[in-house]
Amino acid sequence: MTNTLYLPELREMLAENNVAELEEFCSALHPARTAEFMEGLTAQEAWAVLRHAEMGLRVEIFGFFEEEKQIELIETIDREEIARFIGEMPPDDRVDLLAKVEPEIVAKLMPLIPAAERRDIMRLSAYPEGTAGAEMTTEFARLSEGLAVDQAIEEVRRQAEEMETIYYLYVVDRDDHLRGLISFRQLLVSKSSALVDELMERDIVSVNVGDDREDVADKVERYNLLAIPVVDDEYRLVGIITHDDVIDLIREEATEDAHRMGGLAPIAEDILQAPFLTVWRKRAVWLSVLFVAELFTFTALAHFEDAISTVVALSLFVPLCISTGGNSGSQAATLITRALALGQVTTRDWYRVLGHELLMGLALGLTLGAVAFVRAALTPESVLGTANGWMLAVVISQAVAAICLWGTLVGSMLPLLFKRLGIDPGYASSPFVATFVDVTGIVIYFSIAHVYLNV
Amino acid sequence: MTNTLYLPELREMLAENNVAELEEFCSALHPARTAEFMEGLTAQEAWAVLRHAEMGLRVEIFGFFEEEKQIELIETIDREEIARFIGEMPPDDRVDLLAKVEPEIVAKLMPLIPAAERRDIMRLSAYPEGTAGAEMTTEFARLSEGLAVDQAIEEVRRQAEEMETIYYLYVVDRDDHLRGLISFRQLLVSKSSALVDELMERDIVSVNVGDDREDVADKVERYNLLAIPVVDDEYRLVGIITHDDVIDLIREEATEDAHRMGGLAPIAEDILQAPFLTVWRKRAVWLSVLFVAELFTFTALAHFEDAISTVVALSLFVPLCISTGGNSGSQAATLITRALALGQVTTRDWYRVLGHELLMGLALGLTLGAVAFVRAALTPESVLGTANGWMLAVVISQAVAAICLWGTLVGSMLPLLFKRLGIDPGYASSPFVATFVDVTGIVIYFSIAHVYLNV
Repeated sequence: MTNTLYLPELREMLAENNVAELEEFCSALHPARTAEFMEGLTAQEAWAVLRHAEMGLRVEIFGFFEEEKQIELIETIDREEIARFIGEMPPDDRVDLLAKVEPEIVAKLMPLIPAAERRDIMRLSAYPEGTAGAEMTTEFARLSEGLAVDQAIEEVRRQAEEMETIYYLYVVDRDDHLRGLISFRQLLVSKSSALVDELMERDIVSVNVGDDREDVADKVERYNLLAIPVVDDEYRLVGIITHDDVIDLIREEATEDAHRMGGLAPIAEDILQAPFLTVWRKRAVWLSVLFVAELFTFTALAHFEDAISTVVALSLFVPLCISTGGNSGSQAATLITRALALGQVTTRDWYRVLGHELLMGLALGLTLGAVAFVRAALTPESVLGTANGWMLAVVISQAVAAICLWGTLVGSMLPLLFKRLGIDPGYASSPFVATFVDVTGIVIYFSIAHVYLNV
Repeated sequence: MTNTLYLPELREMLAENNVAELEEFCSALHPARTAEFMEGLTAQEAWAVLRHAEMGLRVEIFGFFEEEKQIELIETIDREEIARFIGEMPPDDRVDLLAKVEPEIVAKLMPLIPAAERRDIMRLSAYPEGTAGAEMTTEFARLSEGLAVDQAIEEVRRQAEEMETIYYLYVVDRDDHLRGLISFRQLLVSKSSALVDELMERDIVSVNVGDDREDVADKVERYNLLAIPVVDDEYRLVGIITHDDVIDLIREEATEDAHRMGGLAPIAEDILQAPFLTVWRKRAVWLSVLFVAELFTFTALAHFEDAISTVVALSLFVPLCISTGGNSGSQAATLITRALALGQVTTRDWYRVLGHELLMGLALGLTLGAVAFVRAALTPESVLGTANGWMLAVVISQAVAAICLWGTLVGSMLPLLFKRLGIDPGYASSPFVATFVDVTGIVIYFSIAHVYLNV
């Protein structure tokens, strides 16, 4: 959805080198909208426009460009100039971006980036992906101990330009140990001679650099935080993660969960823009695994081939019976996987889940069994062949009820088992559960048929 | 996960009416943790403890109680006292909560709530669920036009105690039309004699009261906002929605999407605590619909009964063939549904999606077809009966490839079609797509068999 409204005007301003209008364009709108209007420009043109924004604004607008354009700019703009620009970027964003730029180019850029920023980049990129350390920024407002409220406000004013958020202020001792937290609002409503140390909260919600990013999201959500401090093993404050990064993180996690539950390895990229081969590989691997697993339906059916030869009508109900197991199983798996993600149940609640789903599986099984009985009883004699219609109806309805119960139990227990084993419960997804229940469903179906029809 | 650590001490403090210790307990920890420690208390006991917190803190701790306890407190505590308390609650939270309290009790409480707050409650509850109006709070910091920076800071200081956030300040004219936005940070770094009207941003990202809450989440995420202003049709500022409510909203939407994709109507409640009959109904409806749809597999198979009688081995591959369609279909449906939710594709991109998925379906189909050929060629003669092993392998592999392509196309197009028709694309879920592709897959399979085996 490229916004082409302004493109001709922008190109004209560039051609005429109309400094006043270009400066006006850069600063008049919300930086996100400015970036949108520039979407149709080439990387070179976009940079030529950006040169007319002062550095802070330039960094902001750049932050709203699409990722491909950001990468292209880093890779093609004059090295010295872009290195200086990288030095001004938010610490967490530039590390994420540099990870996607050609390594040879990064190697050439790094020596040109100011020393302090270069060290910061190297420190941040050392944290493994998916940890709090990899998500945090190192630009946050910090106060030393012993300040009065008016001194603290003065200090924040001094830091304000450079910090990602100034609304939560972290009080640290000489060795950077986190001692307290005070909101800017609290400073504002307190007497200016009061001591911050006496006003600040000492019971602080924080995360460790090594914590999983899901824990970060959970805590920020549970405690309604604007930002969460990140500490190292010695409880030294090393960074913060702000609300907007948490929102991005929650969205990413939801996408990953959805992909796993849909039966494919998480794909982070835009589906139409990601390389075809990458997407093919991620999708083909899962489909092949499921396919190979599903081959066992053939093995199971082959085992009952004599029964099918005797009563061909039995084979007509196979897809119906096994899909019942797949559907009830994916429903249960979805509910429990989501409840795990939201913290509504934990693996220790497995027996409560089991009891609940046992009853639920029975109730659902009886519902579907009743429908199945009616339908099977209506089978025309021409289709039945030698089979007894009522007996067949009894077999089908019992099989549907039993397989529905079985699917519900498997679907609800697998995510808990996976979680317990340290596997992401999302992998106990609809296709995975369906495949497992398909195979076992065939065995249940023909076992019941064996009892009633003696085949 | 009730925290019982403090319960005996708390009960002792209550029995001894130890005011000093109870006050200390209420204020020492983060309000969320205080609430956790009180989880094991009865509603009456919890309120007896809360009485020792000053009103602002009392409201905060109450906000972290579990919903059932909040409802119980509203319903059981002395009417006059709880009505006063409701008057102090955040406007958006109290409307959400009162919607869940017994209507007769709300009717008795309402006249006891201070008039201004009562009107606010009635106004907010008039907005339909799922709109921005229903999510917003009416407590926000507003500035009139024409103030200097130091006057504005003084004004914010005055409002700070009561407002949900003071970090974004909205400038309105006499008739409450939204004129501009300035962050507190901007005020802090500006000259105190400067005019707010000259510093503020005039290009403001806002939502209309009637906008869908998904739009709210999208904008807050895209523009990295702390809060978003909500305006009415005349562009009058009527409320704001803060980042923490947006985080809750994104989580809720993700759960709803996951439930739809797992084949059930969204269940908002905690799965183990929701009424059994409600959960049963929501699950049974979907399973029954899918079951009735899946009955067509029987109809389709009955149509090919003669072919099965002739070559019984054909029936053994039915589950394998149709599950291939189900798996490839749910994979494609998940990818496209999620891409729609993230705004990566729109319905107008349908032909690009179609082209992409046509190629992808071919690539995936060829992959699985190759595996299928090998497996079918290995079928032992005892199982084959009269069938020609090589011909059967050709049939199976072609059917698997064709059904995989078909599943991929159906799975990718259905979410777009649903979206276009105004149905939530999440309903084009794995079970729904799987069921549709199951039936059509049988037809494809036996049509190919007919060509090669003449059955």
